[in-house]
Amino acid sequence: MSTCRQALLLSSSNCHGYTLLEFAKQEICNFLKKNNVSELIFVPYAQNDFNGYTAKIKEVIDPWGFTVTGLHTYPDAANAVNSAKAIFVGGGNTFLLLSRLYEKGLVSIIRKKVDEGSLAYIGSSAGTNVATKSIHTTNDMPIIYPPTFDAIGIVPFNINPHYIDKVENEKHKGETRDQRINEYMEMEHAAPVLGLREGAMLQVDGASLMLKGVAGAVLFKKGGCKEQFQAETDVSFLLN
Amino acid sequence: MSTCRQALLLSSSNCHGYTLLEFAKQEICNFLKKNNVSELIFVPYAQNDFNGYTAKIKEVIDPWGFTVTGLHTYPDAANAVNSAKAIFVGGGNTFLLLSRLYEKGLVSIIRKKVDEGSLAYIGSSAGTNVATKSIHTTNDMPIIYPPTFDAIGIVPFNINPHYIDKVENEKHKGETRDQRINEYMEMEHAAPVLGLREGAMLQVDGASLMLKGVAGAVLFKKGGCKEQFQAETDVSFLLN
Ligand SMILES: [Ca+2]
Ligand SMILES: [Ca+2]
Repeated sequence: MSTCRQALLLSSSNCHGYTLLEFAKQEICNFLKKNNVSELIFVPYAQNDFNGYTAKIKEVIDPWGFTVTGLHTYPDAANAVNSAKAIFVGGGNTFLLLSRLYEKGLVSIIRKKVDEGSLAYIGSSAGTNVATKSIHTTNDMPIIYPPTFDAIGIVPFNINPHYIDKVENEKHKGETRDQRINEYMEMEHAAPVLGLREGAMLQVDGASLMLKGVAGAVLFKKGGCKEQFQAETDVSFLLN
Repeated sequence: MSTCRQALLLSSSNCHGYTLLEFAKQEICNFLKKNNVSELIFVPYAQNDFNGYTAKIKEVIDPWGFTVTGLHTYPDAANAVNSAKAIFVGGGNTFLLLSRLYEKGLVSIIRKKVDEGSLAYIGSSAGTNVATKSIHTTNDMPIIYPPTFDAIGIVPFNINPHYIDKVENEKHKGETRDQRINEYMEMEHAAPVLGLREGAMLQVDGASLMLKGVAGAVLFKKGGCKEQFQAETDVSFLLN
């Protein structure tokens, strides 16, 4: 992996017991300061109300000392990302988000800029899914057909955001989250899957990968094994 | 729609309070007898253990007076379906199922034969998803990239199987089922979506469409409207 890539991948923006992004405030602030960022471009493409969604995020992050603008307000999205020092890709529907990123030619631009260390990436939920190897382990409905499930690939594995191991309802016969992830693990092309609990996030700093936040994660491996990790665990081995 | 198509589309094979397929026994038996079927080909492609999965279904349906064989046991799947009078497409992962149906050239064969009335189709869960207009409203994880989300199209709308309107956990911030379906309804290409509760099934008999079983369904329409239907409701208007 590149020794200079900078990313912060949140399971979700909402976490029980916290206001929007509150649980991640310190990590986001540290991450942006460390990367000398004062202006942050928000990518609202996973939802349809670009203005409303951007306003909600701006209302939270501007008071922390950064200026948030929506990518949709720039005349040319590719130019805007090419000139940006940091982007925040928000959650919503992963298929919609990935389709729009490809449509605007942003996947390769973001990949290249993050790889060379000239773009700091923050993602949440769907914005985290598209930062990984592929979107094979999103929880979202496939509401639009993207040109591929391959994603930006800032990390070489898959993430399942909003991970929860509880059975949703004992009388309901639909698959549990673990069953769904294990269906993926049975595929020949399956990469390891990190189930990020709500409140958890991954901090990518070059060759270092740290689990941060107020919750942990579960690693799914071939053969049905699971491994639990608490926050503040070094999981850099996942980058190899 | 064709005036001769014959299909029975189950939300799921399992329903709380019943053994496997028990809630659907009478409907399945009536459906097969009405179509003069004594041999039923089971399509286990939505899962990986073809023999084990077929054996489970055979154990239930053979005692009802029909002979079940797995499609995977035939030397040529396309030939087998072309010669079949009835197939039962089982549940598992919708993306895996649709990919395999396309790979084996079965989508167009099934579509044509059902359309001309020479193949009776039973589907359950993923097997129901692939029988609809498209798989846009499956609950499954996108574990493999299919050549398209378009499906067999026995009915011209979408189905969400295992439909449940309960919030899975108030502390969890992932989308509810209704939110996920409404994300699809916001798309320009969205067709109406019928949320089939576990225990519900649709009986397609030419131009007639009846809701059957031990549970009902919810119709999602553009603009955020929902309409509830009980079992034994005539919903033929959905075929127009
Ligand atoms: Ca989502
Ligand atoms: Ca399934």
